[in-house]
Amino acid sequence: MSDTATNAEDRGRRPLSVTGEADLIAALVRRLPQAASVLLGPGDDAAVVTAPDGRVVAACDVLVEGVHFARSWSTAYDVGRKAAAANMADVAAMGAMTTGLLVALVAPDDLETSWALELADGLADEAGLVGASVVGGDVSRGPCVVVAVTALGDLNGRAPVTRGGARPGDVVALCGTTGRSAAGLAVLERGFGSPRALVAAHRRPSPPYASGPAASDAGATAMVDVSDGLVSDLGQLARSSGVTIEIDKADVPLDPDVASLASAYGRVADEWLFTGGEDHALVATFASGAALPDGFTAIGRVRVAQAGEPTVLVDGREWSGRTGHRHWG
Amino acid sequence: MSDTATNAEDRGRRPLSVTGEADLIAALVRRLPQAASVLLGPGDDAAVVTAPDGRVVAACDVLVEGVHFARSWSTAYDVGRKAAAANMADVAAMGAMTTGLLVALVAPDDLETSWALELADGLADEAGLVGASVVGGDVSRGPCVVVAVTALGDLNGRAPVTRGGARPGDVVALCGTTGRSAAGLAVLERGFGSPRALVAAHRRPSPPYASGPAASDAGATAMVDVSDGLVSDLGQLARSSGVTIEIDKADVPLDPDVASLASAYGRVADEWLFTGGEDHALVATFASGAALPDGFTAIGRVRVAQAGEPTVLVDGREWSGRTGHRHWG
Repeated sequence: MSDTATNAEDRGRRPLSVTGEADLIAALVRRLPQAASVLLGPGDDAAVVTAPDGRVVAACDVLVEGVHFARSWSTAYDVGRKAAAANMADVAAMGAMTTGLLVALVAPDDLETSWALELADGLADEAGLVGASVVGGDVSRGPCVVVAVTALGDLNGRAPVTRGGARPGDVVALCGTTGRSAAGLAVLERGFGSPRALVAAHRRPSPPYASGPAASDAGATAMVDVSDGLVSDLGQLARSSGVTIEIDKADVPLDPDVASLASAYGRVADEWLFTGGEDHALVATFASGAALPDGFTAIGRVRVAQAGEPTVLVDGREWSGRTGHRHWG
Repeated sequence: MSDTATNAEDRGRRPLSVTGEADLIAALVRRLPQAASVLLGPGDDAAVVTAPDGRVVAACDVLVEGVHFARSWSTAYDVGRKAAAANMADVAAMGAMTTGLLVALVAPDDLETSWALELADGLADEAGLVGASVVGGDVSRGPCVVVAVTALGDLNGRAPVTRGGARPGDVVALCGTTGRSAAGLAVLERGFGSPRALVAAHRRPSPPYASGPAASDAGATAMVDVSDGLVSDLGQLARSSGVTIEIDKADVPLDPDVASLASAYGRVADEWLFTGGEDHALVATFASGAALPDGFTAIGRVRVAQAGEPTVLVDGREWSGRTGHRHWG
C-alpha cells in the first residue's frame, strides 16, 4: 500500500471531532460528482439546479439511527443508498425524475470520518442512477446519526400525479415488489446474514424510478410509493381520493425469495407482502381499459367508498393486524 | 374557555407518541398556509413549487437541540423562526428570494404535540415574511430534537452571487448587524433575561432578506451571510475568491445594545462583533465606485492575496483568537 493510501486510511479513521467541520465539508465536496443539470454545486451558501419546465418537485425524508437503520446492520454506503432511494421514490411517485439531493447529516463526535464519506458515496451513487447529484447539505454534531434528505425533481412538463385522483372503476396496478425489505429485516433480526439477496434488499432498495414518469405518461390517475406498507400506503391514496380500494390477493406478485423464506421460517408471506415497507415499489391507478405501462401488474380496482368511509379491502375484507410502519403510531 | 379550546389544549399537551404520526402530520398540514407559488403543498409524496426562471436555488441547514438551541431558552416558535431564518438568509446571500421550505423534524417520544405545532407556526411565519410557505417535510422519533430545513428560492433571472467573485479593489460592505445574537446568548448564559432586545435577537434573528437580491441588482461580485461570524464567513469568501480582505474596525457598525452590554459586563464588544454568528447579516463585495444599495455600509476592501494566502485582516492584522462557531472545529 502506498503512503498516500495509508494516509487516506488514517484520515478516514479519525473521529469527526478531530477532522473538523471545514475539512469534512471539503472532503465531502471533493467526492461528489456534479451533473450538467447542476448550475452551482456544493460549497456556497446555496446550490442552483435547473428546473426546465418552470416548476420543481421537492420531497423530504429523514432516517434516524436506531429507528430506520442500525450501524451494525448497514454500512454507511448502504444508508446513503437507502436515504437517497426513499426520497427519489417519492419524486418518482409524482411522475418526476430526481435532479438533485440536499443532505443534512447529524453525527456523534466519535463517528469515524470514513463513515460520513462513504455515506456521501452511497447518496451520490443512488442519485447517479437517474443522472442526479448531491448538490448541497449541512453537518452538525448530535447524539446519534440522522440523515435528512431533500430531493428535487423535474416533471418535464407533466402534471404531478397526486394521491387524490383515483376514481371508482380505475384499475390498481403495482410496479416492483413488496415484502423483500421486510423479509430481509426478519433475517437480520434472527442474527443471520442470508439469504443475501433479501438482506441486500433491506439494506439497499431498488425503486423503479423510470416507471413513475412512465405511469404518468400512461395516464395514471393517482400514485404513491410503498414506503410504509402496501395496505398503509394504499390507505393514504384511498383517503386522499375518497374511494375504497379492493386488492385481489392472488394478483399481488409473490416474490420467490420472500416465498422461500416464509416457508423456511414456517410462516405465511402475507404480512411481509401487505405490510412490509421500504421496498419503494410504485402503486398507481389507471382508467379501466388503459394499457398498463411496462412493469405494472393489475392487483385490484377502485370502488365508491362504502358508507363514505375510504378504505382498503384485501379479498373483500379489511386487513386485520398492523398495516405498516408508523412512528408514534 | 370553551370546551373546544380546552380540548385543543389537552391535545396539545399529549406526547407525540400518543398523538401518532398520522394525526401529527394532519395537524401540521392544517396549520400551514400556502402561497400562490405553491402548486402542490404538504400531504402528498412531494410538493410542487414554481421555479419561474427555470432554475431553483436550494440551501440546507440543520439545528440540533443542545448544539444550536436549548428548549429551556427558546420556545418552539422561536426555534421555528430561527431555523427558517438560517436557511432563508442563505438563499438571500445568493441574490434570491425564498419560495418554499421543507422541514424534517426528529423529536423524542415524550415531546408535547404543541411543541411541534408551534415550531411549524414559527417556520410558517418566518417564511411568510417573504411570501414563502412550508411546502413539505417529514417527522420521526429520535433521541433529541433535530430540525433540518431545506429552503427553495427564486433568482428572478439574476445570476447567482457566489462566494468566489470578489476581485482586488472591490469594496466590502455589510448589511445588518453582527454581535447581537452572541451578546444575547451571553445574557442567557449568565442566567439573565434582559436586555430583552438582545435575548430576542438570539432567539429570532432578523436577516435583511430583500437586501440580497438588491445587492445582486447593484452588481455585488460576491456575497455571504454571517452565520458563523464575520471573520469566519469573510474567510470563506476570501478563500473561495482567492483574495485577502481588509476590514477597518472603526467602520464596522457597533450596535448600541451590544456596546451597552459590553460596557455593563466589563468587556470589549469586539469578540461579539467579529466572531458572533447567527445574526445573518449579509456581507458583499462591490466594484470600487459602485453605489452601495440601501442598508449596506462599507467596512473594508479586497486586496491581492499576500503570498498567495487568502485571509482576513482586521486593521491590518490577522484576527487573533477564535473566529466563529464551528462544529468539530
